[in-house]
Amino acid sequence: MYYQENIIALATPPGAGALAIIRVSGPDSIEIVDAQFKSITRKKLVAQRSHSIHLGFITNEEKDIDKVLVSIFKSPNSYTGEDVVEISCHGSSYIQQQIIQLFLKKGCRMASAGEFTLRAFLNGKMDLSQAEAVADLIASDSDASHEIAMQQMRGGFSNEIQELRQELLNFASLIELELDFSEEDVEFANREQFNHLLNKISEVLKKLIDSFALGNVIKNGIPVAIVGEPNVGKSTLLNALLNEERAIVSDVAGTTRDTVEDQISINGINFRFIDTAGIRETTDAVEKIGIQRTFDKVEKARLIIYLFDKSNSDTSQYESIKHNYPNKELLSICNKVDRLRDSEINSIKEHLPDTLFLSAKLRTGISELEQKLLSLVDSGKLSSGETIVTNSRHYDSLLKALEEIQKVKEGLEMGLSGDLISIDIKRALYHLGEITGSVTTDDLLGNIFSNFCIGK
Amino acid sequence: MYYQENIIALATPPGAGALAIIRVSGPDSIEIVDAQFKSITRKKLVAQRSHSIHLGFITNEEKDIDKVLVSIFKSPNSYTGEDVVEISCHGSSYIQQQIIQLFLKKGCRMASAGEFTLRAFLNGKMDLSQAEAVADLIASDSDASHEIAMQQMRGGFSNEIQELRQELLNFASLIELELDFSEEDVEFANREQFNHLLNKISEVLKKLIDSFALGNVIKNGIPVAIVGEPNVGKSTLLNALLNEERAIVSDVAGTTRDTVEDQISINGINFRFIDTAGIRETTDAVEKIGIQRTFDKVEKARLIIYLFDKSNSDTSQYESIKHNYPNKELLSICNKVDRLRDSEINSIKEHLPDTLFLSAKLRTGISELEQKLLSLVDSGKLSSGETIVTNSRHYDSLLKALEEIQKVKEGLEMGLSGDLISIDIKRALYHLGEITGSVTTDDLLGNIFSNFCIGK
Repeated sequence: MYYQENIIALATPPGAGALAIIRVSGPDSIEIVDAQFKSITRKKLVAQRSHSIHLGFITNEEKDIDKVLVSIFKSPNSYTGEDVVEISCHGSSYIQQQIIQLFLKKGCRMASAGEFTLRAFLNGKMDLSQAEAVADLIASDSDASHEIAMQQMRGGFSNEIQELRQELLNFASLIELELDFSEEDVEFANREQFNHLLNKISEVLKKLIDSFALGNVIKNGIPVAIVGEPNVGKSTLLNALLNEERAIVSDVAGTTRDTVEDQISINGINFRFIDTAGIRETTDAVEKIGIQRTFDKVEKARLIIYLFDKSNSDTSQYESIKHNYPNKELLSICNKVDRLRDSEINSIKEHLPDTLFLSAKLRTGISELEQKLLSLVDSGKLSSGETIVTNSRHYDSLLKALEEIQKVKEGLEMGLSGDLISIDIKRALYHLGEITGSVTTDDLLGNIFSNFCIGK
Repeated sequence: MYYQENIIALATPPGAGALAIIRVSGPDSIEIVDAQFKSITRKKLVAQRSHSIHLGFITNEEKDIDKVLVSIFKSPNSYTGEDVVEISCHGSSYIQQQIIQLFLKKGCRMASAGEFTLRAFLNGKMDLSQAEAVADLIASDSDASHEIAMQQMRGGFSNEIQELRQELLNFASLIELELDFSEEDVEFANREQFNHLLNKISEVLKKLIDSFALGNVIKNGIPVAIVGEPNVGKSTLLNALLNEERAIVSDVAGTTRDTVEDQISINGINFRFIDTAGIRETTDAVEKIGIQRTFDKVEKARLIIYLFDKSNSDTSQYESIKHNYPNKELLSICNKVDRLRDSEINSIKEHLPDTLFLSAKLRTGISELEQKLLSLVDSGKLSSGETIVTNSRHYDSLLKALEEIQKVKEGLEMGLSGDLISIDIKRALYHLGEITGSVTTDDLLGNIFSNFCIGK
């Protein structure tokens, strides 16, 4: 146990609802709550078994604050690994406040952001990447991001790192041992086996590093800029894409969907659509600023949809975008296909052969567009159950670890002495340890857990 | 059991947080959840005891949706009186949605607003006024409103009504019995005792009816209009009053205080301050509309604070307000007392003897103002633990019941026949029964429970 302090926080979202949960953790949590709890059955909480629920009143000097259900979790079988009490009270802000203030007076202090999960980590209930997965899980808003967070929470990813680190650690100690016997010129660490291990680690690290491109996309969504002149149907296209999705989520009220108006999820991958002003040549100073902003927005996109209709058979704008953004995927899409004659379609196909034809209004060709968008993301890995790195902190540590591993390999090839190789190995061990939390600093923990919500 | 359907709803506030609770109630609730639950200990939920908690995964076709804690409550020892399962999942909107949608497919339907509490009422777990107290409790935002809701939830108020109603019912049946033997001119119901009971009921009803004035104030707050010319310090006064209070609540984050900017609680009573535009004589048509709006706002107030400073020694405005609103309490308050000479103070005291002097900026005289505001509310009853009616539906039924009781008394005095008296008794019984729910109609229940939040 790392902590002696008892902490308290509201664990459910703030505001009014039917229920709210107040969570207390620490060595005296059960006693502290017990002293203010009047059980319906007159039993004392301290005498109750773990994972049991009790009905009664939270009272302060003979005054009942609320009729509550109290759940008891005894160390080590709790979220934090300490004794934990969860108080399920009526969901009024006033009552939540009263109960929290009461226990602040009776020996608890307010938990800081992520402190419950921090304690779970420090008490060995989960490793660091699992703890981070908890935050990802709460933030997940698509099938794909949810699935990856669940996988990471179960420990699949960090187990792999942990095992590699252990093997590397074994070699490191053998090499250290060699240093102790340096006078005798013995070789405890089999160089061939060691090289084999380094290759294996490099491969795994490279694969994890590569997976981050997809992981990042899954976690943050893919920014897509829709570029086109006014009235070519940008909004209609967006609505056509959005409505498909809305129909699916409309069964359940209270989703946060409405605040991210232009985000849709296709097969579990989020696409964030960025609306832009029409781009055209102009001498007007104010309009130039507007167009500059459009360029800035397009700069942030990974994908550009160039939308046009029959009225604009000029391909120079398409060419100009392609020229300005050579590294971005550019999709050419012709709207209002229902109004085109075959000859017109053929003419467009001649100039822009990869053009996708659709009618946003009639909703034809929309699913073809969705498939096209998906095909630009290498989402095959997702269904294969392969490990995917989504966390930029992990990505960073993996890159650094790989760099050190390369140095070790080079050192071995160059026949460097054990003490020099040993330094690079230690650095690699350090960076691998950062991911699982085998190696931590207060700064690192502070950074990670301050991003959590209070109560988690 | 009134229902065979299994219902489900989110019980915690919507949005992201550490935890969310999804509640399932109905005869098959435990079986339905069990079928989708993969316990860590591999035990089946149906075999577990009531009030126990179980760690595991909610799964859909081998895919884990979330790692959750499941609490089991077995009929009749649950909130609704039915079998109830509470699923404590990670507080992501996405996960909440996934779990609710899963169980909607597996035999639950979405609960309507207040349906859990409606079932609790229909299953005899609480009477109607207790059920209504649950909604009041969730809405309570001051010491006083909270205390009254708690008292009502414990049944203090409805027990009193219930007992009186039972006594009245006894007499009603005796009088009915007399009607059966009407040929024989017997008198089963002792008229003297009956008259005594009617007097007792009248007194109790009158006291409850009288308490509503205070109850209403406690529940809804007291509207106070602050009237005065610009720059006399209205905002500074409001801030001075508000800041006192904010200091108290600032210990705990996430209160909803900020949205009701101009509400303060003094000794547990809420005062709602209404800002008004300056009132003055004008011929300008637009300004007249503005002043008319001010009058409309003042119309809604129960209390008027007339704020002025040294610059305005003219008492005609005060007199005009007093004249226009003869039924409202009018407080005359002089701000910026620190800038006044004694002679000026004396002059004001001469014209407006009840004037309270203060400095909003220096915060002197603020607590005197608070005491003055409190003294205008008959809050003595609050601390005496007397029953206070806060619900306008109850108030309405009490008025109607009292009216019928008076008719019965008059009938007795006039020596009316038993069958005529019997009709009025039945009407009184009906109105008393409406309060506790001994008498209900679908409309009545619909009205009450549709005001609840979903999940309660």
